Amino acid sequence: MVKNLQRYSQLKNPGKGYLIINPIMVGGILPGEAQHKLLDEEWIRTGYAVCFDCLEGRSSLIRKPNVQQFLGDLAEFLGGSVAEHSFGCRAAQFAAMKAVADRLMNNSEKHGNVIVADPLCHYTTNIAAEMVGFKLVTTQAGQPPTYQVGAQGFQNKIDEIKKATGKLPAIIVVTHVDPYYGNLNPVEEVGKIAEEYEIPYLINAAYTAGVMPVDMNAMRADFLTVSAHKSMASIGPLGFLVVNSKWSELAFDASKSVKSVGGRALTTKLPNFFGCSVGAAPLISAMLTFPYVVERVRRWDDELEKTLWFISELEKLDNVKQYGDRPHRHHLVHFETPIFGEISQHHKRRGFFLAEDLEKHGITGIQRGLSKHLKLSVYGLKWDQVKEVRDAFYEIAEEYVSKYHLNYNAPVKSEVPERNGAKS
Amino acid sequence: MVKNLQRYSQLKNPGKGYLIINPIMVGGILPGEAQHKLLDEEWIRTGYAVCFDCLEGRSSLIRKPNVQQFLGDLAEFLGGSVAEHSFGCRAAQFAAMKAVADRLMNNSEKHGNVIVADPLCHYTTNIAAEMVGFKLVTTQAGQPPTYQVGAQGFQNKIDEIKKATGKLPAIIVVTHVDPYYGNLNPVEEVGKIAEEYEIPYLINAAYTAGVMPVDMNAMRADFLTVSAHKSMASIGPLGFLVVNSKWSELAFDASKSVKSVGGRALTTKLPNFFGCSVGAAPLISAMLTFPYVVERVRRWDDELEKTLWFISELEKLDNVKQYGDRPHRHHLVHFETPIFGEISQHHKRRGFFLAEDLEKHGITGIQRGLSKHLKLSVYGLKWDQVKEVRDAFYEIAEEYVSKYHLNYNAPVKSEVPERNGAKS
Repeated sequence: MVKNLQRYSQLKNPGKGYLIINPIMVGGILPGEAQHKLLDEEWIRTGYAVCFDCLEGRSSLIRKPNVQQFLGDLAEFLGGSVAEHSFGCRAAQFAAMKAVADRLMNNSEKHGNVIVADPLCHYTTNIAAEMVGFKLVTTQAGQPPTYQVGAQGFQNKIDEIKKATGKLPAIIVVTHVDPYYGNLNPVEEVGKIAEEYEIPYLINAAYTAGVMPVDMNAMRADFLTVSAHKSMASIGPLGFLVVNSKWSELAFDASKSVKSVGGRALTTKLPNFFGCSVGAAPLISAMLTFPYVVERVRRWDDELEKTLWFISELEKLDNVKQYGDRPHRHHLVHFETPIFGEISQHHKRRGFFLAEDLEKHGITGIQRGLSKHLKLSVYGLKWDQVKEVRDAFYEIAEEYVSKYHLNYNAPVKSEVPERNGAKS
Repeated sequence: MVKNLQRYSQLKNPGKGYLIINPIMVGGILPGEAQHKLLDEEWIRTGYAVCFDCLEGRSSLIRKPNVQQFLGDLAEFLGGSVAEHSFGCRAAQFAAMKAVADRLMNNSEKHGNVIVADPLCHYTTNIAAEMVGFKLVTTQAGQPPTYQVGAQGFQNKIDEIKKATGKLPAIIVVTHVDPYYGNLNPVEEVGKIAEEYEIPYLINAAYTAGVMPVDMNAMRADFLTVSAHKSMASIGPLGFLVVNSKWSELAFDASKSVKSVGGRALTTKLPNFFGCSVGAAPLISAMLTFPYVVERVRRWDDELEKTLWFISELEKLDNVKQYGDRPHRHHLVHFETPIFGEISQHHKRRGFFLAEDLEKHGITGIQRGLSKHLKLSVYGLKWDQVKEVRDAFYEIAEEYVSKYHLNYNAPVKSEVPERNGAKS
């Protein structure tokens, strides 16, 4: 018999009340109003939140609430033709690759089973390829400290594969913004190459769609994969696959199964999406926050300004250096922070001191244990909160350089840009 | 540019405030306290609700909150050895079948690629088989009005497949309780057959685990698939794959992918579960309600008594007949209701009148448009509410038989069983 059951009803959230600077979380934070609506409107009363008026057996076809309309609006917002919700961006990548694989099975003369991806792709791209049976190869890694990936590498890799195997890759995948350095990849240029070689092209917009302007049409993408819990102010798990008009028929093949009882064909079910992707409360949360998301994407430049200001402030700390694109073009920022690495050599908590001390300042989201390199984001914070995060890093540095008698040039704080001074 | 955005922030829940009698929903209703905790403890503030203290890159390994412990407790509760959360029962079925398929690829001498399932399996079993590339065949359908499925049919089908192909089926799948008639299938007997033939055996407990006692060990199952949003008082999408000790190593193969950058092997990631199944707010909701679920399973006999009483009351209506197991052994009940079918012939809303009139009585959950056959459940309702549902059906019948001058024998209401009379 299971013991200590009461522990579960007393579950505590270790992130409660903190400012969040974890780059995978910041784009997924729901406004307070949406959180309250999830409770007040009873969207979290039952597991099948959207299914009260399901008529066709697939949640993406429900009209009340109008999921069908929402998916159409979302596709339009992202420059695509048709959208389907999925169990996350990982499941959307799987569905797209599976659709491509299914097509190739019928016509394998031209395309092989190799997928070409950028070297900094998210691990879920590797996993989706593995699930579908594709062999993933990447273009050459960029050089430090920017680690920028070029478009030419894709052309070279395609030619190389064609030469070695006699076939083109099955699909090209580019991560719109990579999860390591927050670099904006050359998606338009790769799109031209994909078009020229007639290779299906997928852009993984997990970190971008919902926080910055994304137009898959301009990028010549066949597939766009989106993470709602990463960048659409939504509870998880939820993602979207958006496709262009060319793939709008091909990507959403109906099931070929027929139920033995009654001989019912499963014509509304999409096998690459498990038949129906349920949707549930996460889907509702994405619908509730869609107006907020559309509005914040319009304000992307303001958000980016906070990021750039924060980078310049943190780089005032001894030898701290931002890696990746300069000037930076995304809110995910990678820093080399030798000063905190040095402190960790003296601290009894080693590298863990930094995440723990930030928590004492009310800030969470640095990977525990890391101090020499950090990934963080101030996306969505107000200017005062961005300053608060800067101050926390400064104060932590000052406390320990004094305690451990380390060499240190005290940074001089800047004010936030004039026109933002009044913003809170 | 997307128009009428404000519609999304004003989204209304068509199920708000209603008594729910939809069989797919009733086991997934969260107690009010758990709903409030999701908001108050900030579990629905961000998309990655469980990930504040993720150290190993997979949500099932997180210790704060203690997901790892929860999955162990859940496995124990269901008579299994190891549990992993998934994007729903459908994804758990896929993961199990994929694990079996992966094993077969290395040793295909004995087993072919056929899956034998009960004829009343859920459509997601067909879809999972389709995704994995298995050919699904079912045993013979049962005879009306019980539609019961026998164990012998499985042995016959296995022998037939062996004779025709020279190989055994890859896996046997039995739906613990079927979604059409709520019949309890002969899972123990099939378990003996599976053991004898050495065929992997999966029981789909989507409708049972979390509402009635389930012991996969006693049923000799290798795999148990569970739906949290269907029967574990949880928001969706969430499911679990539970395996016995034999499959505890085999079912959860790590990814074979290696990241090109840094050469990092994805050793904690499970490809059959998309690497990591995120968990998020649905997983937290299942943890919060786990004590409640364990407790209600202990009271299963009381719940069943309500179902049986309701069946006997509804059958007092002219020619209404419950299909499936008699006495019934599950809360999902299928009725033939010719009286409502007859009314629909006269009603301008045709079959839709019934769902719509029930809503006027504050009750939701009958499939819209259906009146001759109904599936419903009074699971989880208090006795007074069960009476309320009975009364609603009686009143709707009486209104229309009077209006349309139909033949009708007025039913005589029974009181609830003596010892339950005081319960509310």
